[in-house]
Order: sequence, then C-alpha cells, then structure tokens
Amino acid sequence: MSLLVIGTVAFDAIETPFGKTDKIVGGSATFASLGASYFYDKIKIVAVVGDDFPQHEIEDLQKHNVNTEGLQIKQGEKSFFWSGRYHNDMNSRDTLVTELNVLEAFDPIIPDSYQDCEYLMLGNLSPQVQQTVIARLKNRPKLIVMDTMNFWMDIALDELLKTIQLVDVLTINDAEARQLSGEFSLVKAARKILTMGPKYLIIKKGEHGALLFHEDKIFSAPALPLAEVFDPTGAGDTFAGGFIGYMAKVGTVNFNNMKNAIIFGSALASFCVEKFGSERLRNLSEEEIANRIQEFVGLAKFEL
Amino acid sequence: MSLLVIGTVAFDAIETPFGKTDKIVGGSATFASLGASYFYDKIKIVAVVGDDFPQHEIEDLQKHNVNTEGLQIKQGEKSFFWSGRYHNDMNSRDTLVTELNVLEAFDPIIPDSYQDCEYLMLGNLSPQVQQTVIARLKNRPKLIVMDTMNFWMDIALDELLKTIQLVDVLTINDAEARQLSGEFSLVKAARKILTMGPKYLIIKKGEHGALLFHEDKIFSAPALPLAEVFDPTGAGDTFAGGFIGYMAKVGTVNFNNMKNAIIFGSALASFCVEKFGSERLRNLSEEEIANRIQEFVGLAKFEL
Repeated sequence: MSLLVIGTVAFDAIETPFGKTDKIVGGSATFASLGASYFYDKIKIVAVVGDDFPQHEIEDLQKHNVNTEGLQIKQGEKSFFWSGRYHNDMNSRDTLVTELNVLEAFDPIIPDSYQDCEYLMLGNLSPQVQQTVIARLKNRPKLIVMDTMNFWMDIALDELLKTIQLVDVLTINDAEARQLSGEFSLVKAARKILTMGPKYLIIKKGEHGALLFHEDKIFSAPALPLAEVFDPTGAGDTFAGGFIGYMAKVGTVNFNNMKNAIIFGSALASFCVEKFGSERLRNLSEEEIANRIQEFVGLAKFEL
Repeated sequence: MSLLVIGTVAFDAIETPFGKTDKIVGGSATFASLGASYFYDKIKIVAVVGDDFPQHEIEDLQKHNVNTEGLQIKQGEKSFFWSGRYHNDMNSRDTLVTELNVLEAFDPIIPDSYQDCEYLMLGNLSPQVQQTVIARLKNRPKLIVMDTMNFWMDIALDELLKTIQLVDVLTINDAEARQLSGEFSLVKAARKILTMGPKYLIIKKGEHGALLFHEDKIFSAPALPLAEVFDPTGAGDTFAGGFIGYMAKVGTVNFNNMKNAIIFGSALASFCVEKFGSERLRNLSEEEIANRIQEFVGLAKFEL
C-alpha cells in the first residue's frame, strides 16, 4: 500500500510585497508530497528534474518519507522553472517566466515497486500526463484525486475532460469551477461537474475556505483568517497533499473522512503561506499541526 | 423590554437577470424588523414615510409584531425611493435612481413608549440620525447593533466614526471593512476596527458567509450555497434583523450566543434572496426556518 504523487518538482522565483526569492524549490509534487508526509509515511513520487536539481533537496524529500525512485533526473537538461510576481492583494499574480525544460517531453514512468499504489494524487500537470499515469497502473487505485488549473482548461480542455472522467475527487478553485461548468452559481457548477466523472468535487476558495460536494451533500470548510499571507505559492498543492495524505492514513473513503481531510489539508496550507515556497513545510511539529487543527475546530464550531 | 429598529421604510424598484419589479416595499428597517420578527415579538420601529406609503403595508408590519407608533407619515411628501439593477453575477449593482424625499429632513422621534428599549438595531441610514437615536434614549440599551455601508464612509466618515464609537456590534461587508480600516487582511482590519469602539465586529462576505470578531476570538460562519440568488436586496438588513432578534430572544450577550445569532441571521438572509424584495420574509413558517437552520448545521459540521 502506498500513496503515489505525480506532479512537478521545479524551481520557482517569487516576488511578493514582502520580498523576493532567487530560485527555490517548488512544484506541485514537492508541495503535495510534503503536505501528505505529515499524515502518511509511504509516499512515492513520479516527476522529472534536470541535472541542475540539488541532490540535497532530493535527500530532504526522502527524509520526509518520500520514495524518489520515480523521480527522473535528465542529464544535460534543466528543471522546470516558473517565476511570478504577486499583487498587493496576494490573490492575483503575473507570471514573469515559464521555462518548461524537462517537462516538455515528460514521460511519467512508473517503477514496478510503485504498483502497490492505493492512493493516487495527480498534482497539477498536463492532463495528458495525468491520464498516462492512470493508464500505467495495473490496478486502479482506491482513490484518485486530481488537481488542475485554468491553464489546462484554456489550452487542453478535451484532454482535461477525458482525465477528469477517470478520477474520484477533483480539486479546483471557484473561478475554475465556473470556467469548467459555464455556471456562475457554485452549486450549479458543482452539479454539472459531478456529471463529468468525479464523485467528489472540492472547490477551493482561498481565504474563504473550501466547499466539498458529493451527491446532494455539501460541506463548507472555513479558512483560517490570517493576518499575513507571506507567499501563497503551493498552498493549493499542499492542501491537496494534506487531503490525500489524511485519506490514506484513515484508509476509508467516505464523505465524513473527506470533511476531516479538508480540515487537515487546509491546516497545512495555512502553514505553507507563512513563508516563501515550501520552507514552512520542512519542519512542522506534530504539536504545531494539532494546535492549528484546534484553531479550525474553534473557528467553525457552534452549538445550537 | 423591547427591540427598537431604526432605518428606512421605502420603495425599491429592482432589476435582476431574472426580471424586474415596479415599486415594491423595501428599506433597511423593513427588512430588519421582518427578520427580527421571527424570533422576537416586541419590535418597535422608528422610520419615516410619505403619504404615498400604503396603509396595508403598515398593517402587515403590525401583523409581524412590529409596533409602528414611531413610523412618521409625512403628509404631502413622498417616501424614499431607490432603484437599482444587478449585474449577472448578482454581486454588484448599479444605482439607477435615488430619491431621498422624506429622508432628507428625517428627525428620528422616539415615542415615550419606546424608552423601554433594551436592544437597538441601527439599520443602514445616515450615521448622524443613528447617533441621534442613541442620544435620545434615556437608558443605554443592553445591546446596540449598527449596520452601515461604504456610501457613508465616502460622504460622512467623521460622523460614522463618532457613531461607531457608541455601538457594541458593527456589521459591514468585507470591502467596507477594508475601506474603513485601510487594511487588506480582514484579521488586521478587524483588529483596527475593534479599537474604534465596537466590541464585536461582523464582517459579511455574502456567498462566503460571515466572520465574527471579538477580542482575540474569531468565528467563521458558512453561507448556504444557493443554486439561485433571485434578488439580494435587503439580505444584509435581514441578516442584521435576524441577528439582533435572536439576541433579544436569548437575552444574554456573549460570544457563543452571537455565533448562533449569526447562523439564524444567515438563515433568514438565505430566504430573503429567494424572491424579490421582502416577499419571502412575509410568511415563513417555523418549520421552514428550523429546516434551514439544520442545513447550516449539516453544512459546517465536522467531527475530528
């Protein structure tokens, strides 16, 4: 049994109103696997980097119980690089640079030792690659969670629609749910998207929390109101990783466990935004996480 | 003991993507007193209308346990009239017509029989008038709730700041909280506003619910995800009325009761938007409200 995470392992250079970074390690698979690592210890990653990617960063993933056998290192090539600048409201950003590099011809090879995968996290990546991973698994995982973004809806909608037919849980933000469904009301959007394949839909609303839809049920999860959002990069990936890591830990797929998984994912995402990149996710203590979870419980609780 | 509601009683003409109305009865005091009437039966209103205001509408308020002794009827004058058109997203609107009419020289006279007021709802209205009402009450009410909007921040900020010094609870939306505080983070905005007078701050976030701030405590209330928002006019007033009506019913001012009051106010607001104007608030059954409250409980509940 294991949790397989696919996505990007990459370099980011980030500017926010609080400062800027040189190239730091980012990528959807990095954030998602770090997020998951706080709840589950059998994580396997499929991704690709160039020979510019530091060995000690790979070792750091391994220290977080991430098996990197499926991390391809392409000699003579460069890692995926993204650079962006956040606006003052931290809700919108401009992309300054996108260098696909090794991603351009990424063939997601699944090591044999990964075929025991029961939980599959399809981190944000080309839907074609996400689909290939599903096809290459001999047994369908018990739970497939897919994260994606408007970028793929713009340039690869047909492939995206084919991929979401194959997954159990789709995680997108509110603008993306509206774009994908053509409906403004999130309730109508969710109804439509739930006919496209996924049995569960999570709509991420950033500072407004998240909504989980399943059949006719809805769960509204709060977001922790934060005085400072230092850097939102990777928060969605971290949320998704925390979500599936928690699901893998509890081992039973149902609506109630997913509610809790959303709270745990949100808690990890709330740490992620406190520092640049994945820095805050590197050394969280159990106590810090438990305290943060208690903040969520206190925030949302009412007793009529 | 009674609940005093001041605000506007007026005519609205509304256009939404779903249709348009001729002049229908609206106004902050109308919505707030109807909202409150579902939880509390000693409601007294201070407002002003012209002689164009239908007697049967006044009788309808009375049927909802609203004492209209303080409703001034100005002979030979016309009621306040507002007309607006909502955009497709229902979150923004254009004002087409504003005719102040009787509001221009509104002097909020408090009948002697109203001096037993323990709960005071200052519905959206000029902060100068709101302040005058407080000054004219011989005993300070146990709880003063004030609703206001960006319009008054734009044209009467000094008066607004004087008035909010005098109240216990301020209800504004997220954009208004940012405008009033000059802070983008709602946590920082709340901290600043809580130094301006109010002991409690409710930030209304429309489809994203509401946040209650008090000292270092925060409560995050969900909004019911709705497939259709037919007409948002009056939802904020209804929320405020339901909130203070519930507080008057329970009779003890504390953070926990306010959490519940927010849920009850949100439930009533969720009815308000289902039809044009205050139509949906005219004949709600106890069972409808109880069922809606249960939807809120189900929506937000998680058990770790």
